[in-house]
Formats: sequence, C-alpha cells, structure tokens
Amino acid sequence: MKLSRRAALRLLGAGAAATLIPKPARGRVLRQGAGTRTTDIVIVGAGFAGLTAARALRAGGHKVVVLDARDRVGGRVKPGKLAGATVDLGGQWVGEKQTRLRALLKEYGIATTPQYATGRSLVEINGRILSGPGEDVSLGAAGDAALKVALSRIRALVSEVPLETPWTAPRAREWDAVTMAEWIERQTGNRDARTMLRMMVEGLYTAEPSQVSLLFFLSYVKSGGSLEELWGTEGGAQAYVVPGSMHQLAGRIGAELFDQLVLGSPVTALAQDASGVTVTSAAGSWRAGRVIVTIPLPLTARLLYEPALPPRRDALAQRSPMGSVIKYWVAYREPFWRRRGLSGEVSSDRPPTDGFYDGSPPDASVGRLVGFIEAESALALTGRPMEERRRLVVARIAELLGPEGADPIDYVDNDWPAEAWTRGCYGAFMGPGTLTTLGPALCEPFGRIHWAGTETSPVWSGYIEGAIASGERAAAEVMARPA
Amino acid sequence: MKLSRRAALRLLGAGAAATLIPKPARGRVLRQGAGTRTTDIVIVGAGFAGLTAARALRAGGHKVVVLDARDRVGGRVKPGKLAGATVDLGGQWVGEKQTRLRALLKEYGIATTPQYATGRSLVEINGRILSGPGEDVSLGAAGDAALKVALSRIRALVSEVPLETPWTAPRAREWDAVTMAEWIERQTGNRDARTMLRMMVEGLYTAEPSQVSLLFFLSYVKSGGSLEELWGTEGGAQAYVVPGSMHQLAGRIGAELFDQLVLGSPVTALAQDASGVTVTSAAGSWRAGRVIVTIPLPLTARLLYEPALPPRRDALAQRSPMGSVIKYWVAYREPFWRRRGLSGEVSSDRPPTDGFYDGSPPDASVGRLVGFIEAESALALTGRPMEERRRLVVARIAELLGPEGADPIDYVDNDWPAEAWTRGCYGAFMGPGTLTTLGPALCEPFGRIHWAGTETSPVWSGYIEGAIASGERAAAEVMARPA
Repeated sequence: MKLSRRAALRLLGAGAAATLIPKPARGRVLRQGAGTRTTDIVIVGAGFAGLTAARALRAGGHKVVVLDARDRVGGRVKPGKLAGATVDLGGQWVGEKQTRLRALLKEYGIATTPQYATGRSLVEINGRILSGPGEDVSLGAAGDAALKVALSRIRALVSEVPLETPWTAPRAREWDAVTMAEWIERQTGNRDARTMLRMMVEGLYTAEPSQVSLLFFLSYVKSGGSLEELWGTEGGAQAYVVPGSMHQLAGRIGAELFDQLVLGSPVTALAQDASGVTVTSAAGSWRAGRVIVTIPLPLTARLLYEPALPPRRDALAQRSPMGSVIKYWVAYREPFWRRRGLSGEVSSDRPPTDGFYDGSPPDASVGRLVGFIEAESALALTGRPMEERRRLVVARIAELLGPEGADPIDYVDNDWPAEAWTRGCYGAFMGPGTLTTLGPALCEPFGRIHWAGTETSPVWSGYIEGAIASGERAAAEVMARPA
Repeated sequence: MKLSRRAALRLLGAGAAATLIPKPARGRVLRQGAGTRTTDIVIVGAGFAGLTAARALRAGGHKVVVLDARDRVGGRVKPGKLAGATVDLGGQWVGEKQTRLRALLKEYGIATTPQYATGRSLVEINGRILSGPGEDVSLGAAGDAALKVALSRIRALVSEVPLETPWTAPRAREWDAVTMAEWIERQTGNRDARTMLRMMVEGLYTAEPSQVSLLFFLSYVKSGGSLEELWGTEGGAQAYVVPGSMHQLAGRIGAELFDQLVLGSPVTALAQDASGVTVTSAAGSWRAGRVIVTIPLPLTARLLYEPALPPRRDALAQRSPMGSVIKYWVAYREPFWRRRGLSGEVSSDRPPTDGFYDGSPPDASVGRLVGFIEAESALALTGRPMEERRRLVVARIAELLGPEGADPIDYVDNDWPAEAWTRGCYGAFMGPGTLTTLGPALCEPFGRIHWAGTETSPVWSGYIEGAIASGERAAAEVMARPA
C-alpha cells in the first residue's frame, strides 16, 4: 500500500513512542499495480540497511522506492507493548563504538541511557549460581585462569583475520574446517571455562557451538572489535538503551520517505536486462536502474531472479541459516531484584532463559527484564503458544532472582524463527567450509543487483550498526556506477 | 504449458532414447490460467518422487495435476547428448538392492546392464597412484588395517541408528555435535585411511567432511544399507546402468500423465484453508484437496505459504543445503584404458576429477568416462564456462589413464549448483545440530501439504530409489486421509 505522509507518520510510529502495527498480510497478493512505475533505485527491505541506503541515495539526488513485505519499517527492529509501554522486541542496544548508530540517534534527537548494570550479576553454570559485581563474576581461580587463556588466544587469532576478507587469513582454511565446539574442547579441560565459552558463542550467534565455524566466529568477533566488547555492557555492545524504543528511529527515517515507502508488498521477482531491473511485488511492479536487496542473507535466495542468481551466491545463501532466538520481556510492579543488590543481568547455561538484563525504564516506575531464548532452546519452543514460554521463563526468573519473579504483571515475546519475513535472528551464521569457499560471493554485485543487510557488513555484522554500514556502502556502490 | 499426449511423448522422450528438451523459461510467468482449475491432488515437481506419487494416486482413482518448473520431467535425472548419444547428466545408476527402481525398470521393459568394472581400478591418494583388481585397491598393510578398523566402527555405529528416527539413537546428541572431519581424525592417525574416509564422505554427500554431522552420515549410510554398498559397484549402489538412459524411465512415466502434467510452470505460492489448497504457478492456479511438495528440501522454503510454513520446517530447510557436484561425460574414439587392463574406475584426492567410471555403451563402439567434480571443487567451478572445466578434466584423465585421454571426441557436463530449480546435487546434507533438533519436522505434514523427495526417505535417501519410496509414501499418506 502507498501511504500518505500523514498515514506514514501514524503507521510508522514517528512520534516519541512507536505504535503497534497491524500484522502483515503474508505472501498474499494485495493488488496488482496498474502498469509498471519507474524510479532510479528500488530498495528491497525497510530495515536499517534499507532505510539508511534510501537516506544516502536521496541525499545524493536519486529517486528511490523502498518495498517491504511487512506493514511496518524496521525489519529486525520491532516494537511491542509491555504493560502499556513500548518496548523493543528486536534490536535495542547501542554499543559504545557504534558510531553510525549513535550519530543517527543524535541527529534525530533520540535520547539514550546507559544499560542498568548496578549491583551483582549472576552466572548460572554447571549447577551453581555465581555472582559478582557488575560483569565481574568469578568462575573461581582455575576457571578464571582457563577462561583468560582462551580469551587471550581468541584475541591473538582475531588479530590475524583481515576485516574485509577473512577468507584470506593465513590459516583461514584450517580455521574454517573446525567448529567452535571442537575448538573450545581443545583449548581447555576446565569445565566452567568451556561452558562459559559455549555460552558466549550461543549468546552471540544464537546457534550451537557445534554449528559455527571457528573462522566465521573470528571474523564476526573482529567485526565488533573484541569478544569482550561484544559480550559487555559498559563500554561494550550493550552499553546504552533507548528508553523511547529503538524502533522510533526506524519510524522517523521511514516517515521521511513519504510515498517512496511501500509497505505490505513482498517482492517476489527481480528480472534484469541490459537497461534495467523490473521488480515485481505484491503491490505491483517497478522499473529501476539498480536494486539493493537488504533482506536477511538466507532469504535472498527465495526471490525469483531472471537471469538466475549466480550459483555461488545461491550456495552461500543455502549455507547461511539464520540463528534462532525468541526475545522476551517480563514486567513486574517494581525492579525487585535491585533491593537484593542484583543488577538483573543473568547468564545461564540452563535453558530456556539463556540470558537476561534489567530493562526497566529510567524512572524505575516498573520493573522489567528483557532476555533471550537461544539456539536449540528457541528451535524447541518456536511455534508454540506464548503462554507456554511465559510459564517456563517466569519460573526460571523466580528461581534466579527470588520468589517475586513468579508474579509478573505482563509478559510479551517475539518468536523470530516464526516471522515469515526474517525467519530467525539476530543474523545468519556459517558453519565450516562456507566463508573460505563462498565468502567472496557475499557482497559481489549481481549485475544491477547490489547486496546490503547486516550480514554483508565487515563491521558490526549482526548488529544494527552493521545494517547501517551496509546500507551506506551499498548506496555508495550504486552511486559510483553509471545509471 | 499443457501438453497433448502426442506432444508429451515427443517432449518427454518416451521412446527408446530420450530427446533433449529446450531450456526452461526460468522464473518467468508464462501465462496466467483463465481462472482456477480444480483437481484432487496437486504434485509440485515431476522428478521421480512426483512421478511415482502421481502413479500411485492415479492407481487409487484420484485426479492429480503434476506441476514442474522445467520444460522436462525427471528432476535430478536429466538427459544430455554426448557424441550423438543420449547420456544421463543426473542420476543414472541402479543399485543391487534398489528394489523399487528395479521393479519400475522391469515394468517398463527398460534394460539394465552391469556397470563395467573389469580390470584394475585406480586410487590416487596423497601423491601416489595405487591400483588393484576391481575395487580392491590396497592402501598398503597399515592403511588397509586402519581403514578396516574405521569401517567396522562405522558398521557398529550404524547398527545403533534407528532407520526412521535417527534422532532417537541412544547417542544421537553426541554424534550430532561432531563433524565427519573431527570423527575421522579421531579414528586413526594413518594418513591414507583418513584421506580415503574423507574421499568417501565427499563422494557420497558432495560436501566437505567438516560440513557433515556424524549422525547425519550414519543415518544416510543406514538408509542405503552399509558404506561398502553405497560406495560399491558390483552388489552395491552403482551395480547397474541403463544403456538407453535412466531419463527414459522418467519420460515414460511422465507420458502416461497426459495433460495432467504441466511443464514450464514454477509454483510460487501455496495457500491453504479449511477446505483445500490453492496452488499458484506460472501456468495459472489450481484448487486441490491436498498438495505433495517433492522439490529439493532447501528449495521448499522458497515458496510462499499462506499461512506461513511452520518455523521448524523452515529452519530445517535453512540448515539443509544441497551438496555440490558437476557431472561430466567425456567421449573417446574407444575405451583406450581397457587395452591397458584398466577398468576406467578412478577415485582421486586431487581436484577436480574426484572420481570417474567407465560409461561406455555395452558394445564399446565408443569410449566414455563419466565422473564428478565434487564439493568445494564444484563450488569453485560452478558458473564458469564449460570449456574451462573440460580442459581441467581432460588434462587429469590424461595423467591418470594415459596420453590418449588428452584427445577426446566430445565432452559435456551439467553444473548442478547452477540449475535454478535444483541448486545442487545429489541431495541435501546436514551439519551438526540439525537432525537432533529439527529431524522430526522433515516429513510431518503441514495441514494439507505433504512432503516427498529423496531427502524425506528413510531408505536410500539421496538416490532415485529414495525419491520413489518417498513418492509412494506421500501418496499413501494422502490416500489415508479424508479429502
């Protein structure tokens, strides 16, 4: 559907609080456009990659049309309601070094606040519950020492990985033949250190360590700086939150696109020839000089391409499944854990509550926890009724933080593997033999079709920051070519 | 397009020799049907799974329509021309114990002949070329002993895997956390035995050992009986060939479908409700009581489903990429290797000619070799000009079989990863953590949609026999339910 500016502002939640958007009509042809419309560049997907590509292209004087299958912008950044407030059911954190995202937030005047991290955090591991100040939870002398050695080994390996072309690392083939499960087992015999490393892999990739290639892991860590930064709150990738919801930023950028944004219009086919590309969507067809495809990597192969997608790009998409995560929010009358000196930050090796944080509003008028059901646990619970997950999550919170945890005032979650237009989160991961064999196909333009999306970014791959970087890169790529 | 019986017989190659079929119009809407037609069951895909499902359903008195994206039947069984003769560019062999396929060939009066295996076979391994009678090539005493121990270990593990539900094996989780590369390394320090085992994994799955889960490997071996049978010619999976081409069998079954077969009509969407399913294809729409989807597992997620595909089935498709293989045929004036006492059967650890066989016609009026570029080598050469592969293959044949190998009279290959409607061959494989987590989603019907295709078969998964078994199973499943 095409939106008036007024309708756009309403639907996209361009105000301070994002509004909930009606469910998209999935895969159904809404209506055929009356003839093919023309534009300079069509962008497939109105997540942060698509939105920032559109911004950059418009700034460069180009006409764009942004198509999205959903009835909202934001992609993997999605608003939801919890106890009357808007919360982010998708991407929400702002990292200390995520300069692009921080600049955008500043430009739109959207405030951030540090992630709450006061008090003791908990680590549940191998049957014990450990605690420590901030993120400094000790595994005990032997565990800490073993973990330190492994982390310093990761730092050393990461330093050997070229940021833009990880497949050219001197030992790329060796590292790409090994899974993280294997590698962790070889590093240390210490059980807690092993479990902690496994938890970090699961938390970052929402996949099992046995499914992730060491080379992919290293390149992903490289893209975010260091494992400590990726894992961390203060100074790290979870440093800040947006009290008014991250989604409002997507809404604000989307609203600027006016009628150049077409929602509820899944793209089904891209046919290119010597003079341009014809884009077929549920809302009709567009003819453009170039197209930027920003949807999640494995979904890119689900469109019909004419001529057919190059086989190496298709094979890469086949070998890059989305990770699996269900993000939940639980609301309480107050952040009761704070009274106990707890930060609300918990990492656990007991499913399904693999990790959660304090997500209360700055005034602490209500207590909120925000967490993740990850990897295998998410695949076990995807497609099940939300009530079933609520029971499991709430019971675990009560065990971990105290009996008040059993009495929430609200619960909401988002089952990302069940979302037809994302099919997992946070991003795509790669098992052994993929990056070395097919990595160069990731960003290589296919004629007039260019690739964006967080998976294509050498910096902050898997994060909002990576999506922004990829959108800006793809826009620059398009502008550098003849129309 | 709809075909008259006469046109069907011509196009499908129902005669003794299959004809070459024009290239399909990929992904292009041929024409919209005038309104929605009705039938009892729609079958998506006219490979062996779809064809045998259609046969069984018609025998049960049901009306069927079979839709295929290509302009030919056969799916991964495909005819080609080499030096004027029809050869199989896809599936071609008949295994000793493949009872369904043998019965079908007998029913249609199509002759088979044993795979030529007279003389010494070669194994090129770790810089040496070894030879031996038939398939009995010795790696030397130490290598043979190490290989024997590993093969007997595989037999023991396979015996613990339940055929229909490999994820319920007592040690399923342990085996599904390990790659074949890891497992092989643990079995033996003998270099030749390790390489031989790696070659077997690559040859069977057309994937690297680092990409294949041990549990998936064991379940696949179980589905074909034993590793020795899968690998073997006499008494094994490569026991017989069809001189007139395997594709003619597909053509004959397809021809019986008359106008119930619609070619050149990619299916794009399946929308089901309480009373039936609407199937949208490039040749128009059909309304049916049930649908059987027989296309390769990873491609099943590329259709638009309404309601959306259950997340676990989608996640399974995302985690089951197609193996990678390019099949080649080389013709010579005569089978010159036979004069040297060679069988023409070669296994090699030097890419790109990972393995080939004597594919000469029974009268040896011309010499033919048929072989495979596998896994990483196939991904390196997919999408390249055929001439480039021809040069590489011919040069290797000359090195292995003698200088006459440098002087072929014809060459043809099929780049399976580049085929838009298959995107790899022979079948889908699974890395760690897939079968245990998502295996039960493989065959579970999704409302009125049932799954077939060789990947869904517990017997002979990855083979024509498995496709037939899956088609028959799906047809029985449909007939056992209320319309």
